[in-house]
Amino acid sequence: MSWVNVPAESNFPLENLPYGVFSTASEPQHRIGVAIGDHILDLSKIAHLFDGPLLSEHQAVFQQSSLNGLMSLPRACWIEARHTISSLLSRSNSRLRDNTEMRSKCMVVQAEATMHLPAKIGDYTDFYSSVDHATNVGIMFRGKENALMPNWKYIPVGYHGRASSVVVSGTPIRRPNGQTRPVDTEPPKFGACRLMDFELEMAFFVGGVTPSLGHPIDMKNVEEHIFGMVVMNDWSARDIQKWEYVPLGPFLAKNLGTSISPWVVSMEALKPFAVDNYLQDPAPFQYLQHNDKYTFDVKLSVAIQPEGGQPTTVCESNMKYLYWTMKQQLVHHSITGCNMNPGDLLASGTISGPEPTSFGSMLELSWRGTKPIKLNDGTERKFLQDGDTVIMEGVCVGNGIRIGFGSVSGKLLPALPL
Amino acid sequence: MSWVNVPAESNFPLENLPYGVFSTASEPQHRIGVAIGDHILDLSKIAHLFDGPLLSEHQAVFQQSSLNGLMSLPRACWIEARHTISSLLSRSNSRLRDNTEMRSKCMVVQAEATMHLPAKIGDYTDFYSSVDHATNVGIMFRGKENALMPNWKYIPVGYHGRASSVVVSGTPIRRPNGQTRPVDTEPPKFGACRLMDFELEMAFFVGGVTPSLGHPIDMKNVEEHIFGMVVMNDWSARDIQKWEYVPLGPFLAKNLGTSISPWVVSMEALKPFAVDNYLQDPAPFQYLQHNDKYTFDVKLSVAIQPEGGQPTTVCESNMKYLYWTMKQQLVHHSITGCNMNPGDLLASGTISGPEPTSFGSMLELSWRGTKPIKLNDGTERKFLQDGDTVIMEGVCVGNGIRIGFGSVSGKLLPALPL
Repeated sequence: MSWVNVPAESNFPLENLPYGVFSTASEPQHRIGVAIGDHILDLSKIAHLFDGPLLSEHQAVFQQSSLNGLMSLPRACWIEARHTISSLLSRSNSRLRDNTEMRSKCMVVQAEATMHLPAKIGDYTDFYSSVDHATNVGIMFRGKENALMPNWKYIPVGYHGRASSVVVSGTPIRRPNGQTRPVDTEPPKFGACRLMDFELEMAFFVGGVTPSLGHPIDMKNVEEHIFGMVVMNDWSARDIQKWEYVPLGPFLAKNLGTSISPWVVSMEALKPFAVDNYLQDPAPFQYLQHNDKYTFDVKLSVAIQPEGGQPTTVCESNMKYLYWTMKQQLVHHSITGCNMNPGDLLASGTISGPEPTSFGSMLELSWRGTKPIKLNDGTERKFLQDGDTVIMEGVCVGNGIRIGFGSVSGKLLPALPL
Repeated sequence: MSWVNVPAESNFPLENLPYGVFSTASEPQHRIGVAIGDHILDLSKIAHLFDGPLLSEHQAVFQQSSLNGLMSLPRACWIEARHTISSLLSRSNSRLRDNTEMRSKCMVVQAEATMHLPAKIGDYTDFYSSVDHATNVGIMFRGKENALMPNWKYIPVGYHGRASSVVVSGTPIRRPNGQTRPVDTEPPKFGACRLMDFELEMAFFVGGVTPSLGHPIDMKNVEEHIFGMVVMNDWSARDIQKWEYVPLGPFLAKNLGTSISPWVVSMEALKPFAVDNYLQDPAPFQYLQHNDKYTFDVKLSVAIQPEGGQPTTVCESNMKYLYWTMKQQLVHHSITGCNMNPGDLLASGTISGPEPTSFGSMLELSWRGTKPIKLNDGTERKFLQDGDTVIMEGVCVGNGIRIGFGSVSGKLLPALPL
């Protein structure tokens, strides 16, 4: 228990302690904080309290404007930081609890803070690791026989994405203009995207002292390089994607904006929610094999909130449906010697489950527009409409603990006039 | 003419003035310089001489360790910087010429300098803009009938690449390990890449005050955002690429290393070598149209130098063979509102011409291994061998001027043992 009041349904009890970057009206510089209940513990104000054996020499990382410095330290430092923060916030520890002056400086009400991107993202990669999603999309675009490509169960398929257009929750997203070919036998058209979609994903930040170019990350060390996770909305312009993606993959359909939740939940916090990994058949190559559980029971949901209306939940999924683990993704990504850096963001791909209500995109939920989704206000959606706000949430619940990610939301603005 | 001696065949006369980032043994910090003859003018030592109306307030950019600061200024500043440098190096200007003490500080012998990446690359994108290359690859992989995809003449096709693995000329590149499927009807294998290739490309750096997410770069402003160019080797693991690239595009086959030449040649220097743009039929959409010449007559060559041997030129191509211009590439890239940043690197894709000797990759030169290339030492190459150094050069020659890019080279190291 913490001396900070944590409401019963809070995402951020003492067992969570996610990191974020925030600012306030009175103090506009970006700084690192940890969510606790409805508050943020401003680490920039208590950097000197990180006086453990490892961090006493690295206190400066808590005064940076992003998490990259902390992410760049070895994992043992992350664990020490968590112990220090957990101890400082514990009811039994008087160090902060009884220091009224310091508390007044370092405790910030979340509602009064503006959240920012937690890290400077050097490179961003998006995987395609949900077997249900890959199968659904495959059926729609290539038919049932060729649904899963031959490489899918050997390779954690992924592609390099656009890092600059990753934005924090709350940032409005503009419907893009672009080329599409509505009728396959006619020439393409230029104009506003008509099939605007979300993709329910999770993503993790790379951390640790990463190998240089030419040196892969081994499976035996990979845990040292996974810092923590966020929920992600990989906004997708389906009609642009369909016209552009062969043969070099998705490009403009994906770089119009990618939203992430502001709080980075550490792998330590998620540990109690590890579940069996997805059964992989055929067995992956040796370099991709690991025996420990690195799949997590994170309940995910997506809601659509029309302009001026109430949100309707349109999808309930779970991270545990992912076929490939984050360890496998990261090891595969670096097997060619690709140099990974702290702050790199690696996303799961759309997380669909086996049930139609667990499909993680409108493309699948409305089955390419053939089965419109009903919202609570009586309107229907095949894809997103201008003014819709998409809200995704992630939470682990069990054994009396609730480890929440909070939400990632974004409002869809109309396309710019041509 | 310059007061600095410029040898007759130098790539770097007074008309060129490319920017680079270098260090020396006696002064290891990275700093910005301009190549002139066999020397480098160290701009960090003469920042105070940029006293024109625009740059007098921005002298600090010349003391940064990368070109990102200079790239972030408006194009008018780049032009003023070029005028200032050109004037300072002119025979008629005594300011530096007669100041022995300052000259001894700011003139560095190129042979004594180590070159570094010219900019911190936020995002890297690779296009696919040579019609001969796209056609050649299409014929090999899909047959003559489907060689060019239906989107190719409408869209400057491209994909997001890996920024972290872009390295400067001289960096050794390791043959990667990875998954391949040598026989289509059998399961894949894991091991060292067997079909290691180069791709002859050029690339440009984005600059200027770029629009924020959601706001495209218009064709009428796009010139404000093209800072300068380099020659690039997009090392490619063909067998890994073939197995992984459907449906999300090239991934590990390309992130093992991408080499660029160290000197960034400005668009001002290239202007005298502008030639007619490639005739585009069908006419592109309005947003991609421009009338000015933005194609350049840059002679390109590729040589392979076996371990301990002499280089053999295996390809002679030219930038003018590109179907899509850099203006079209950049406008297309941002049409969805993708935010571009100073220091972003946008590459052309392999530049092949119509003649077999102008094909810009071993894949095409050896026609998928069916026509081995003879080297001067009598050995043959279908693809690259361990120990081979690949050397690419670019130069504009005409009207008594020679604007050289210098070279981008890299030695292929053997794969790490499994």
